[in-house]
Amino acid sequence: MDVGFIGMGRMGRGMAARLAQEGHRVRAWNRSPEAAQGIPGVTAVGTAAEAFTGDAAISMLADDAALEAVVVQGGLLDGAGRPAVHLGMSTISVALAERLTAIHGRAGVPYVSAPVFGRPDVAEAGKLNIVAAGPDAAIAAAAPLLDAMGAKTWRYGEEPKRANAVKLAGNFMLVAAIEAMGEACAFTEGHGVKGGDFLDLMTNTIFASPVYKNYGAAIAARRYEPPGFGLRLGAKDIRLALQAAETAGVPMPFASVLRDGLIEAMSHGDADKDLAALAEVSARRRGKG
Amino acid sequence: MDVGFIGMGRMGRGMAARLAQEGHRVRAWNRSPEAAQGIPGVTAVGTAAEAFTGDAAISMLADDAALEAVVVQGGLLDGAGRPAVHLGMSTISVALAERLTAIHGRAGVPYVSAPVFGRPDVAEAGKLNIVAAGPDAAIAAAAPLLDAMGAKTWRYGEEPKRANAVKLAGNFMLVAAIEAMGEACAFTEGHGVKGGDFLDLMTNTIFASPVYKNYGAAIAARRYEPPGFGLRLGAKDIRLALQAAETAGVPMPFASVLRDGLIEAMSHGDADKDLAALAEVSARRRGKG
Amino acid sequence: MDVGFIGMGRMGRGMAARLAQEGHRVRAWNRSPEAAQGIPGVTAVGTAAEAFTGDAAISMLADDAALEAVVVQGGLLDGAGRPAVHLGMSTISVALAERLTAIHGRAGVPYVSAPVFGRPDVAEAGKLNIVAAGPDAAIAAAAPLLDAMGAKTWRYGEEPKRANAVKLAGNFMLVAAIEAMGEACAFTEGHGVKGGDFLDLMTNTIFASPVYKNYGAAIAARRYEPPGFGLRLGAKDIRLALQAAETAGVPMPFASVLRDGLIEAMSHGDADKDLAALAEVSARRRGKG
Amino acid sequence: MDVGFIGMGRMGRGMAARLAQEGHRVRAWNRSPEAAQGIPGVTAVGTAAEAFTGDAAISMLADDAALEAVVVQGGLLDGAGRPAVHLGMSTISVALAERLTAIHGRAGVPYVSAPVFGRPDVAEAGKLNIVAAGPDAAIAAAAPLLDAMGAKTWRYGEEPKRANAVKLAGNFMLVAAIEAMGEACAFTEGHGVKGGDFLDLMTNTIFASPVYKNYGAAIAARRYEPPGFGLRLGAKDIRLALQAAETAGVPMPFASVLRDGLIEAMSHGDADKDLAALAEVSARRRGKG
Repeated sequence: MDVGFIGMGRMGRGMAARLAQEGHRVRAWNRSPEAAQGIPGVTAVGTAAEAFTGDAAISMLADDAALEAVVVQGGLLDGAGRPAVHLGMSTISVALAERLTAIHGRAGVPYVSAPVFGRPDVAEAGKLNIVAAGPDAAIAAAAPLLDAMGAKTWRYGEEPKRANAVKLAGNFMLVAAIEAMGEACAFTEGHGVKGGDFLDLMTNTIFASPVYKNYGAAIAARRYEPPGFGLRLGAKDIRLALQAAETAGVPMPFASVLRDGLIEAMSHGDADKDLAALAEVSARRRGKG
Repeated sequence: MDVGFIGMGRMGRGMAARLAQEGHRVRAWNRSPEAAQGIPGVTAVGTAAEAFTGDAAISMLADDAALEAVVVQGGLLDGAGRPAVHLGMSTISVALAERLTAIHGRAGVPYVSAPVFGRPDVAEAGKLNIVAAGPDAAIAAAAPLLDAMGAKTWRYGEEPKRANAVKLAGNFMLVAAIEAMGEACAFTEGHGVKGGDFLDLMTNTIFASPVYKNYGAAIAARRYEPPGFGLRLGAKDIRLALQAAETAGVPMPFASVLRDGLIEAMSHGDADKDLAALAEVSARRRGKG
Repeated sequence: MDVGFIGMGRMGRGMAARLAQEGHRVRAWNRSPEAAQGIPGVTAVGTAAEAFTGDAAISMLADDAALEAVVVQGGLLDGAGRPAVHLGMSTISVALAERLTAIHGRAGVPYVSAPVFGRPDVAEAGKLNIVAAGPDAAIAAAAPLLDAMGAKTWRYGEEPKRANAVKLAGNFMLVAAIEAMGEACAFTEGHGVKGGDFLDLMTNTIFASPVYKNYGAAIAARRYEPPGFGLRLGAKDIRLALQAAETAGVPMPFASVLRDGLIEAMSHGDADKDLAALAEVSARRRGKG
Repeated sequence: MDVGFIGMGRMGRGMAARLAQEGHRVRAWNRSPEAAQGIPGVTAVGTAAEAFTGDAAISMLADDAALEAVVVQGGLLDGAGRPAVHLGMSTISVALAERLTAIHGRAGVPYVSAPVFGRPDVAEAGKLNIVAAGPDAAIAAAAPLLDAMGAKTWRYGEEPKRANAVKLAGNFMLVAAIEAMGEACAFTEGHGVKGGDFLDLMTNTIFASPVYKNYGAAIAARRYEPPGFGLRLGAKDIRLALQAAETAGVPMPFASVLRDGLIEAMSHGDADKDLAALAEVSARRRGKG
């Protein structure tokens, strides 16, 4: 397929490379142009509009502000050569997903929310878990692209925002798992057991899953750099989850604890470290930070 | 080996049966005597003292009060035919473990804390994860028993209470996982996505571990009876964790949220349901309980 | 002085009436025009621009959105007959205060943030506590107006947003007091003591202050209608406080608890009741709602 | 009246002195005897039993453990010359109050729970607020003593534990007020407003009550020594409140936040400072501790 890709961050580059590798023709655009260059099989283009055309356009940007700047304020939907479908794969707010759905509807461009679970190396390998919601026909049309990028596409109906809600709920669970490990390690260390020795048991038995293994290893080693998933981004996702929770009338006390902990982490200089550094908050609170 | 077993609850019965099956001679005692009968290869005895003798004695009782009643108030350590080692496998407080260590020390009976992870069916299969701390020689002597009951024995040094701290930290993580799923499902349902559809994704990908799969399935189906791990017992474990955290000077905001949620669950009649019923608190708080 | 007043809600009407009573010439505008009529000594005008002129303009609107719609999108600052000073007395976000400061700066209109503590009857009596921050000269010029409306004007320097931060911090303390009373009453009632009997002691001794007396009486009687300060507005203020706290890097666990409680209250149908209805959340959680 | 007084801490000394001043004959006992000496009009006695006799005995000890050691383990109720009534004025757990009620009942000594609000200087002035529950006849008989020590006696029925529940609920509200001020000050300081300048407004207007004025002044000055009400004691009271809340099935999220904050304060070396030092936790969490 002929696909335009907007946003060549670490995730976007991996996904675009994978698409090219699987035989798709990829035009890529990025705000700072150098990031769009040198990806095997991917053609860099000079404007977002040149990427927002073809059989499909894919956007993978850092946050609401970036996506709004490019798509809404950038007037992409007013252009002539609009794509047959827009796959919005960024982790954005439920509210923006609703707004984008309305805007695309008026412009006659099918919009699919399709955020993903997986880090850049998983993206390169085409093994992402893709959470998709939007018009069935549009998702069906984009299936070759989704199949190229993902191990599996999980479908959540025709209302795009639902995919974003699922993504935010998943990231909430991830941050909650880190906090739980952080508190548990502070607790066992208070009783003479190294956090790593405790987590070794947990992450090899009843909690033997990727999230616990990966973040548990970082917490055990107190190794938070270079960041895989930056703490500031995690804080943003919890903020988005709390906003969407309020809209839906859902109290989330765990998410509130996470919010306070992440703010504390950032106020102590850990914003640019890995999200696993949230565990340092628990250590500091017991006087051993 | 010649072993006495005190406490024939669901876990104790499974463990005793497994020991007998592996060729050990087991004498079993239970407060209400019928529970000690009819276990293949296990001889019921009439008093706790008859079980507290031999190559090893194992205790597996419901809580601090039960263990104190039998061992301390029951004067077991004053008796003549004391065992070569006492394996305390109940989930008890760190404080009681310290007290038992001191009492056994004065009586000259080696004490090993050896709480376990695993449900009754896992106990029957001899596949428990055993968390052991105590004198090396005592643990070595008991190795044939530990090997018979467990898939693996995880060692945490010579100070028995450390094993209890590890067990409580693990149960804290378990309850935290349930709360995280409960809040996440309330959130996605507030946005039109069934909790089960959301958890299907999570528990088959980044959270694919026994805890998330088992409790996630119960939460998705809102099926909390019969209880596997009763909510009241879970509340007890969180209480013990909070007490031991205070002793060690460790704030645990997640554990505090769990405490409040479990109390709310019990005040709404769910004390005797499965721990997974904690998720109903999140549903109720959003007005859909 | 010749003053224009934008926003004739319950607070605005009381303040405008008081100004007229004290000898000032008041032109008043409200989105729904009838609210601006029939106030002794106050002249209703047909457009916001007609009120945004003279020796001073005062705005007292419900929230950020209302103020932005009238002042920013309404283009008031582009008009010809702009006022000598704008007193922004609404309870708005710190972020909007900063934005308004910048916009007014470019337009050459001095901006003073001057939110207030006090209910409508206090406004009518001219006994408000006014929290003012902005250019000294502008506050001095507006002194006759501030003196007419308030018992005292509390000054917080030249940076307008500081007054808004103080107002939000004060409202946070107010909602926290309500929550504390709600939990305390649930606690005493759980032990057989009526909430009202308990609060009678507290609010006449160590907590003998207006906030505790007023809200305590409502909680004791479980009387939440008609609302004095609506729960939905209180929830908005906590949201604004949390946002401004995040900007400033300040964790606020009490505010997080309040946020969750207020969402729960609204999800159970209490959004339009008095803020004191937050206490019902504590009652419900213990199974007696 | 002829009264024995057990416990000559700072509160007990003030109360005993006041009783003597009002014409009562006071025999006083303290574990470390020097504290019972040199109080005008008060006779020091050598054993608790000598104080546990007469028209009334009053106990005012630091905590559950101290009271249990003296009254229960000390066997006071087995003695011959028992008092006509025992006024238990210590701040103790609801559970111990229930146990003491049962024990006194069996011994035939009327027991009245009568904890107080007020600091040592208030005790000396005879201006305490006394919270009393117990048999009407016993309270009536003790009225001259209560009147001598207190500005007012607040009655909560015949079940002694209710007075203890009221006292714990009051102390919970007090600690919650400190936390609210601590968070609010961290918030305003994050926006450039000194905590003291903010609290000056609050504690002279809508929060003008003794608790806010006293603790607010300490927080504004960051002056936590010498302690008036020690942080460790406050932490004990929150622990007792949480225990009694659990017994009664009452979730208390604010109390849980307080528990975590107080533990954090103690882990950072503030256990022996004034309770107001809880505010330092908020400052530290924002990176300015």
